[in-house]
Amino acid sequence: MPLVGESVARIDGVGKVCGRAQYVDDIFMRDLLYAKVFRSTIANGRVKRIDTGKAKALPGVEAVVTFEEVPGHPFPTAGHPYSTDPSHQDVADRNLLSGRIRLYGDEIAAVVAVDELTAEKALRLIEVEYEEYPPILTVSDALKEGAVEIHANTGNVIKKTGYELGDLAQAFNEADYILEDQFKTSVVQHCAMENHSAVAYVDAQDRVVVYTSTQIPHICRRVVGQALGIPWGRVRVVKPAVGGGFGSKQDVVVEPLAAFLATRVNGRPVKLELTREETFIATRTRHSMEYAFRSGVKKDGTLLARKAHIFSLNGGYASHGHSIGAKCSGTVRVQYKQKAVACEVSTLYTSMPAAGAMRGYGIPQVTFALECHMEDLARAIGMDPIAFRLKNFHDAGFVDPLSGVKAHTCGIKECIEKGKELIQWDKKKQRFRDQSGTKRRGVGMACFYYGTGTWPVGLELAGARIVLNQDGSIGLQIGATEIGQGSDTVFTQMAAETIGIPLDWVHVSSEQDTDISPFDTGAYASRQTYVSGWAVKKAAAEIKNKILERAQRMKDIPAPALDVTAGWVVYKQTGEKLLSLESIALDCYYNTAAAAPITADVSCNIHTNAFAYGCTFAAVEVDLATGKVDVLEIYNIHDSGKIINPGLAAAQVHGGVSMGIGYALYEQMLFDPKTGKPLNNNLLDYKLMTAADTPDIGVAFVETDDPTAPFGNKALGEPPAISPAPAIRNAILDATGVKINELPMTPQRLFEAFRQAGLVGQQGGRQHV
Amino acid sequence: MPLVGESVARIDGVGKVCGRAQYVDDIFMRDLLYAKVFRSTIANGRVKRIDTGKAKALPGVEAVVTFEEVPGHPFPTAGHPYSTDPSHQDVADRNLLSGRIRLYGDEIAAVVAVDELTAEKALRLIEVEYEEYPPILTVSDALKEGAVEIHANTGNVIKKTGYELGDLAQAFNEADYILEDQFKTSVVQHCAMENHSAVAYVDAQDRVVVYTSTQIPHICRRVVGQALGIPWGRVRVVKPAVGGGFGSKQDVVVEPLAAFLATRVNGRPVKLELTREETFIATRTRHSMEYAFRSGVKKDGTLLARKAHIFSLNGGYASHGHSIGAKCSGTVRVQYKQKAVACEVSTLYTSMPAAGAMRGYGIPQVTFALECHMEDLARAIGMDPIAFRLKNFHDAGFVDPLSGVKAHTCGIKECIEKGKELIQWDKKKQRFRDQSGTKRRGVGMACFYYGTGTWPVGLELAGARIVLNQDGSIGLQIGATEIGQGSDTVFTQMAAETIGIPLDWVHVSSEQDTDISPFDTGAYASRQTYVSGWAVKKAAAEIKNKILERAQRMKDIPAPALDVTAGWVVYKQTGEKLLSLESIALDCYYNTAAAAPITADVSCNIHTNAFAYGCTFAAVEVDLATGKVDVLEIYNIHDSGKIINPGLAAAQVHGGVSMGIGYALYEQMLFDPKTGKPLNNNLLDYKLMTAADTPDIGVAFVETDDPTAPFGNKALGEPPAISPAPAIRNAILDATGVKINELPMTPQRLFEAFRQAGLVGQQGGRQHV
Repeated sequence: MPLVGESVARIDGVGKVCGRAQYVDDIFMRDLLYAKVFRSTIANGRVKRIDTGKAKALPGVEAVVTFEEVPGHPFPTAGHPYSTDPSHQDVADRNLLSGRIRLYGDEIAAVVAVDELTAEKALRLIEVEYEEYPPILTVSDALKEGAVEIHANTGNVIKKTGYELGDLAQAFNEADYILEDQFKTSVVQHCAMENHSAVAYVDAQDRVVVYTSTQIPHICRRVVGQALGIPWGRVRVVKPAVGGGFGSKQDVVVEPLAAFLATRVNGRPVKLELTREETFIATRTRHSMEYAFRSGVKKDGTLLARKAHIFSLNGGYASHGHSIGAKCSGTVRVQYKQKAVACEVSTLYTSMPAAGAMRGYGIPQVTFALECHMEDLARAIGMDPIAFRLKNFHDAGFVDPLSGVKAHTCGIKECIEKGKELIQWDKKKQRFRDQSGTKRRGVGMACFYYGTGTWPVGLELAGARIVLNQDGSIGLQIGATEIGQGSDTVFTQMAAETIGIPLDWVHVSSEQDTDISPFDTGAYASRQTYVSGWAVKKAAAEIKNKILERAQRMKDIPAPALDVTAGWVVYKQTGEKLLSLESIALDCYYNTAAAAPITADVSCNIHTNAFAYGCTFAAVEVDLATGKVDVLEIYNIHDSGKIINPGLAAAQVHGGVSMGIGYALYEQMLFDPKTGKPLNNNLLDYKLMTAADTPDIGVAFVETDDPTAPFGNKALGEPPAISPAPAIRNAILDATGVKINELPMTPQRLFEAFRQAGLVGQQGGRQHV
Repeated sequence: MPLVGESVARIDGVGKVCGRAQYVDDIFMRDLLYAKVFRSTIANGRVKRIDTGKAKALPGVEAVVTFEEVPGHPFPTAGHPYSTDPSHQDVADRNLLSGRIRLYGDEIAAVVAVDELTAEKALRLIEVEYEEYPPILTVSDALKEGAVEIHANTGNVIKKTGYELGDLAQAFNEADYILEDQFKTSVVQHCAMENHSAVAYVDAQDRVVVYTSTQIPHICRRVVGQALGIPWGRVRVVKPAVGGGFGSKQDVVVEPLAAFLATRVNGRPVKLELTREETFIATRTRHSMEYAFRSGVKKDGTLLARKAHIFSLNGGYASHGHSIGAKCSGTVRVQYKQKAVACEVSTLYTSMPAAGAMRGYGIPQVTFALECHMEDLARAIGMDPIAFRLKNFHDAGFVDPLSGVKAHTCGIKECIEKGKELIQWDKKKQRFRDQSGTKRRGVGMACFYYGTGTWPVGLELAGARIVLNQDGSIGLQIGATEIGQGSDTVFTQMAAETIGIPLDWVHVSSEQDTDISPFDTGAYASRQTYVSGWAVKKAAAEIKNKILERAQRMKDIPAPALDVTAGWVVYKQTGEKLLSLESIALDCYYNTAAAAPITADVSCNIHTNAFAYGCTFAAVEVDLATGKVDVLEIYNIHDSGKIINPGLAAAQVHGGVSMGIGYALYEQMLFDPKTGKPLNNNLLDYKLMTAADTPDIGVAFVETDDPTAPFGNKALGEPPAISPAPAIRNAILDATGVKINELPMTPQRLFEAFRQAGLVGQQGGRQHV
């Protein structure tokens, strides 16, 4: 009964469409109170005076808490596993509330009231006086002599790292051609459908309980414990259904404050739900980055030398700190082979919203720069950009010299072949050769590689528990979190296939509870199918063995002669049915002489990684007169190893590509350069892709079979968002000859570039084309 | 660090007092609907016609369901583990709703509406026509020729069983004296503070979820599955905090209907909460029973022969069926030694509310009869009743010839000694010898024995899972249920002592969830500390071993040289601290090279039983003129083996004795003999004991150390309710010379008996005394 590899329907699909899934906002409790945060209206400065007297006096207000009343110790927020090595721990740079204002909307005080309206009224009664400093919004703002330090004694540098491999000077010397480029990527926001939201209370055993929309319940538990300064065991975090995360909920944003406020109102439940406006500025963003690339190549297209400088703007708090910047430097080193390579990355504090994890964890950023640069290099030496990439892309067997991770499988060549075929690359290249008029068409492509999970940098630990129910079905508990991506469904497939039962005999506990759910670090780094999949497979195999042992006991037939198929124990040789799983389960539960319910409670510590690969091919039409880009066709092709569920995998790709197109063309958080005030932190002014804006997306998979994975599978969740932007940029270049090196490629930016390139006149307009 | 045996405070005490515990009534959900049941206003009959048209048309009504629309298959409700042996299965004699009316208030239809008021209005719009039969309220009603059968083809007999051991005729022949007695005990209700209540919905995976106030979540899951006719694995039952059960919630009463109704409103959550009036008639009661005892004794007090006939009136549905009657027959056989003994028990259907489990499971009933009878036998042969009991009570080493259960320990003699001493028996006997006047004082006592758990009749299976948290604390999951009795606290003591950690390092998951909680049959038969205690001890021992193994791995010191004390791994010989449990736990979770969180997931199938013993000593003052009885002093002494928590144990005794006094003197559900209509199904007319009515209760324990128990402990939850009623009856006898053989011993009943005995005149009044 093959189930892994089949496009089975989401186990929660119909239920979610029917409104049966329960999110944080579906949690109601007796005596529920509502919290609102009093936020700064300056981007950099400090509170000189705060007066909450009038707010406290408002009827219905249960508590007003300011930065002066929160624990004095700082805590970290990143959704990384804890490390016992202090040098590996996340940056602890924030308090629950702060009088030092580090971004517009920084959290100064909080109000708890009997309803939301009263809480909002109370916010307006709080009086505050600031001392204001100039906002720090750029690399030069942050690093210039005498810049105000966002956090004391940092020089506004969270961390700076670098490496040099090989003799860089010598390699550049050997080059026939050297190209230098600069790129910029923008601040964007995850815009998950569900904003950050948590309900916290103190339970009958004096423990702090937090229901929250999170990707990382077990990590959240630890951070809440750290933030409140209580033993972690006294914290319980529960994750109900989650309406999307994309990395924004791989950070512990609202939970510590909600928990702390609950302790300030005698343990009564407190709901802290951010508005969309708050989610934009007070959760996390994708880092904007600036890149300087210098590469040397031989005439034959051999890449010899590369040096990259990257600055990553992290906003007012460290969040994931330098991890994302450091990961970017890996792409410079790993994606293409080169004799010598050097990279230097700095992660800086600014007065912007804190940047953190976002689908791709820095790789969509650096890959934009890299794949634009590769395109330009190929053009510079007059080589076909695809051939140039293929010549230099690393192969199966490649070992990253720094991490030691080996590429066991590599399907990038097949991905590119498939992409070329799907978009009819050669035909279009031919057709688009000589164009005139306002509207120009072009094709472009870009490649990527992406690691699966975090080993060897991070801990990779996953757990699963399976219980055989009385009817022969199983209950499956995992620590891994369903956040909309379909993980519960693929774990169901894995468990059903491994044991030998129908799909609907698997009942997944979709709600993680840190008191109960097996430990798993959570949903990030496209790790769950790869890492947590091992735990599910191991637990399911253990259940199957125990079933066969019980069957042996019941029928006195050796377990090795038996197998499980379609919910029956059968003779392995003949397939003849021997015992239904229901009869075995009933015997396990109710045989008074020898009752022993069958369970498996396992944990897997994974010490492997696997590189996923892929590429995007895009065909665009550019209107020179308006700067508008239409994506006519787009294909996103992946080597993600064996595909567990092609239908769900395609859905992941659709979402990721849509996000990638938005990143390429529309999305950018804007800030007033004078004040640092966000200008478009809402879904009206922030141009998020909608279904109407999204072209048909072509999806294809090149299935390799990775030996390190539980089912041959590799990362898929994040990769679709990586390569669309550079592919579109390269298609625009193909159409217009103009290099756009900064995201997003808005009409304004394109129009200015076209004008500069002489494609349109100084006044713009069609007549000059 | 001794923790077992200490009177530690309830772990949920402060939280419950502060209102932090969450009961079913604290569950609010989006789109919550409210169900109300349309109940019969006759006690025996059938529905000829029902019209729900007007109810359905009422705005706000989401569904009206009648008996014609529910599944046709019958299901059982008793809170017993399932049995794979059909002859051991509970009686399946009811549907979700019924057109055959078997008791006043039987469930005919149900309404689901947007609020309670609308649901109640809709009930009043349902029109029904009945065909009515005479109510069956007594043994003779049920068994008389031509009686209407409550359930077809039963003759109104659910089951009749009996045994005869030894040569009964011969034994009676040898007797010097033969006494025949008849007794009656009454219908009473549990009156837990929290009425029966459930919220059910269909989840995103199309599974039926029921939050309910139950003693037996895992059994409830099975019964809901049976009732709805769906695989049991598709049912999830969650038990939040429970406000008392006393056996009434060892039955599956509201859950199947709530679940079914949820499926009729597209899975929206449906709350079905009974009123107090409904709880009286539509949940469960204590069986009223009628007893005929015949015993033969020698002059020296040797008990030779006994024959008992017992009729148990079970109401309109079988619920626990014949189990309770059968258990009563055990007391006849086991409590006292006799050469020959026979007993016949019949459990009958009547038109009264269904009787089920209630604290003591039939033993308070039969023990009333037995201990009155023993008193009367002693008096008949002129022997001291205590000496008579002691002469005949079974001893340690006794083996029940039918069940095979052995009394490993027996502290009844010590209990009686302690009771005599506490009440100053001899002194009072002396003082009360010659009394005159209206008010007479007397002392009385009664003994009991009580098995612990259900082995060998029932399955005894318990599970526990423990997780070592990052801070060295543990999470403890048990399938056993806290229902107010303090089980979570004693399990905490057991786990903390076994591992070697402070008490507040144990975090109990008090909410059982059948998807997750280790399988355990639940709270009944005073089994949890005895049976589930083994699971906790086993899991805790496994955790301790794994901690020591990890310490060995970290420090290269052999585990056998180490121990755990107060949260530290220490050298066993010196007590010197080596590693904190926190440091070990952090290594288990976060050592990237060898992470492996420590957990234990165990199950115990117990094949032992242990007899608990005890007695009540009471001193009363009886007002002959009014029939009023004042309990002046009452002492309840127990051999419950080792006492895990003396403070909590005393609280159990207080509650049980209060219940026992109510049973003795006040409580009785009354029914109109013509119509079968309940006359006092509310807390105004039903005379439940209040704190003001309860005298000071003396508690003492005789601690034996039972070798079959995890900590030497035996049953304690139910025993306190057993012996107060016969002790008070015997004290009244001592005071007045009048034998009251029917419960409750109300002023009316006593006054009539006193008048019959010539203690008061035909007109009553003081002058005749």
